Amino acid sequence: MSKITSVQTYLDQEKMDLAIFSNPTTIHYLTGFASDPHERHMLLFVFPDKESLLFLPALDMDRARLRVDFPVVGYLDAENPWQVIKKSLPSKTYRKIGAEFDNLNLTRFYGLKTIFERDFIDLTPLINRMKLIKSRDEIDKMLVAGEFADKAMQIGFDNISLSHTETDIIAQIEFGMKKEGISKMSFETMVLTGTNAANPHGIPGTNLIENNALLLFDLGVETLGYTSDMTRTVAVGQPDQFKKDIYEIVLEAQLTAQDFIKPGVTASQVDAAARQVIEKAGYGEYFNHRLGHGLGMDVHEFPSIMAGNDMMIEEGMCFSVEPGIYIPDKVGVRIEDCGYVTKSGFEVFTKTPKDLLYFDA
Amino acid sequence: MSKITSVQTYLDQEKMDLAIFSNPTTIHYLTGFASDPHERHMLLFVFPDKESLLFLPALDMDRARLRVDFPVVGYLDAENPWQVIKKSLPSKTYRKIGAEFDNLNLTRFYGLKTIFERDFIDLTPLINRMKLIKSRDEIDKMLVAGEFADKAMQIGFDNISLSHTETDIIAQIEFGMKKEGISKMSFETMVLTGTNAANPHGIPGTNLIENNALLLFDLGVETLGYTSDMTRTVAVGQPDQFKKDIYEIVLEAQLTAQDFIKPGVTASQVDAAARQVIEKAGYGEYFNHRLGHGLGMDVHEFPSIMAGNDMMIEEGMCFSVEPGIYIPDKVGVRIEDCGYVTKSGFEVFTKTPKDLLYFDA
Repeated sequence: MSKITSVQTYLDQEKMDLAIFSNPTTIHYLTGFASDPHERHMLLFVFPDKESLLFLPALDMDRARLRVDFPVVGYLDAENPWQVIKKSLPSKTYRKIGAEFDNLNLTRFYGLKTIFERDFIDLTPLINRMKLIKSRDEIDKMLVAGEFADKAMQIGFDNISLSHTETDIIAQIEFGMKKEGISKMSFETMVLTGTNAANPHGIPGTNLIENNALLLFDLGVETLGYTSDMTRTVAVGQPDQFKKDIYEIVLEAQLTAQDFIKPGVTASQVDAAARQVIEKAGYGEYFNHRLGHGLGMDVHEFPSIMAGNDMMIEEGMCFSVEPGIYIPDKVGVRIEDCGYVTKSGFEVFTKTPKDLLYFDA
Repeated sequence: MSKITSVQTYLDQEKMDLAIFSNPTTIHYLTGFASDPHERHMLLFVFPDKESLLFLPALDMDRARLRVDFPVVGYLDAENPWQVIKKSLPSKTYRKIGAEFDNLNLTRFYGLKTIFERDFIDLTPLINRMKLIKSRDEIDKMLVAGEFADKAMQIGFDNISLSHTETDIIAQIEFGMKKEGISKMSFETMVLTGTNAANPHGIPGTNLIENNALLLFDLGVETLGYTSDMTRTVAVGQPDQFKKDIYEIVLEAQLTAQDFIKPGVTASQVDAAARQVIEKAGYGEYFNHRLGHGLGMDVHEFPSIMAGNDMMIEEGMCFSVEPGIYIPDKVGVRIEDCGYVTKSGFEVFTKTPKDLLYFDA
């Protein structure tokens, strides 16, 4: 069943007349057509009982027509988009209309209200639910994205040197990926040396790589429409025993959580599995973020692996497991793999080793 | 007057009790604090008569406190953000509340409605108006961003070779920029060879650079919080006379529009100045996009330089002038500079020459 058909089935069940999507990623997900209209408008209209309609800037019509097998309507910058939409839609009374609240801004909401004169029903849960469970085809694409992340990490490792800065290494990683045909990292690559890694949202700069310290890499790529995300922390020279101990605690937390994952446990239990290891070791206060986040076409999706989220883990879910300990001005360690839930466990997309690796720089 | 003070003055004039901002770029613009909360919530509350309040993920509180001199409130992933906001706001009856409709999604809108129980007034026009006229300080930053774009373009030129692909050259450009400390291009760098440039939204790939053809570069960087954006089309080997003629038409259109710009003309007149050149030459149908877009912290801002936009051009506005001719399967040319409006004309941020440059590859 195509993804559009799933939406149509839902509309039919809920006795809704229309679903409106405005998020470029959702439109890509549902139709296979990828485009970023920036501040212009791209909207997908799905009806329960007739073919869909894609509305977008005239500039992008030809490209869209190559990808979708239903009508495409364009508008010029000088036209009023809401009037063009009104003229293009099948004329009938739309009573029950759905839209993705997480991505529909108020400007578009009020623009659409000039056409429909009514409030909408939130389709964010439907789309999140659809995106939550990945098909085999999607997982295969994520395995490819993971393989590239492993290659990118290896490039990072190959460039560890005391004469390199954090941004030097990032440049080498992204250069290597471009050469492999990867046009986009899934987020800004992080290379953080020494105490700079002690900030979970630290910013790479022109610091030289420190010796006898830890070095953190957080990176991912976007390919085939899907993302990857991985973090490794490695040793440069000989870090002191305290840093190595912190590393081992985080590694144990990471592996414990991964082993724990299977269909039927809850997201909060997965978070707790890792958090308990760190709390027992006495560093609970320094693990100040959730354990993980879903990913797919976006690098942040559902489920959120955190305390308070009682969502049941199911086969086909994809998410990160990324515990960390960040002790300001002392040490920062994070280890992260993303993976997918199988019938009985969890398989990771990224295969770079997790035992503490040592580099002479 | 600080930007927050400008907002406060506006609230006072309009007898409004509160302004709510949810766009990370606007929050950066108003406060100097840059952060991307992804799907989490970051909201800035500005009151007419008391200090502002920044609400954001607990993870980012320390970084925010270093940048802003008013209260910062954090929330944990496991907390209900709307309840935390409700408890943190000065308790009074908020009657007239403003928000940026262009960036407030319906999920946040309905979350905020649980606190305020009323509709909002759109502050998008206020913020767009503030962002529209750049200060000298902002223009100085954009000149720096322009200088880096010139350097990036030069790297592109230095890497023209028949043994290179489009993505090879992009990799070299972005590598060179990383080495200069530029962590982010302002959009995906475009290098398009031959007929691939004939699509105004063409996608670079692993095509080898063609000989006796045109080669298009569209790139920009983000630095100091501001963006640049420039396009050049150059000759590789000896393109035929037809291609060179098309180039000269686009160049004349570009220069004509730039010369025309000064305070008091309208955006649509600027568009027409370029368009008339291309129409007279008989290629009007192949110039199928607006002439330009504003830029600043975002690479797409107001004003939109297009037919139908009667906005008066004013000193301090910054925008692109980027006419193009795209004849499918034949040739694509675009030439773009961004600049700022002075008392009497238009000064560009980027200085790479615009006479057709020839490269032996």
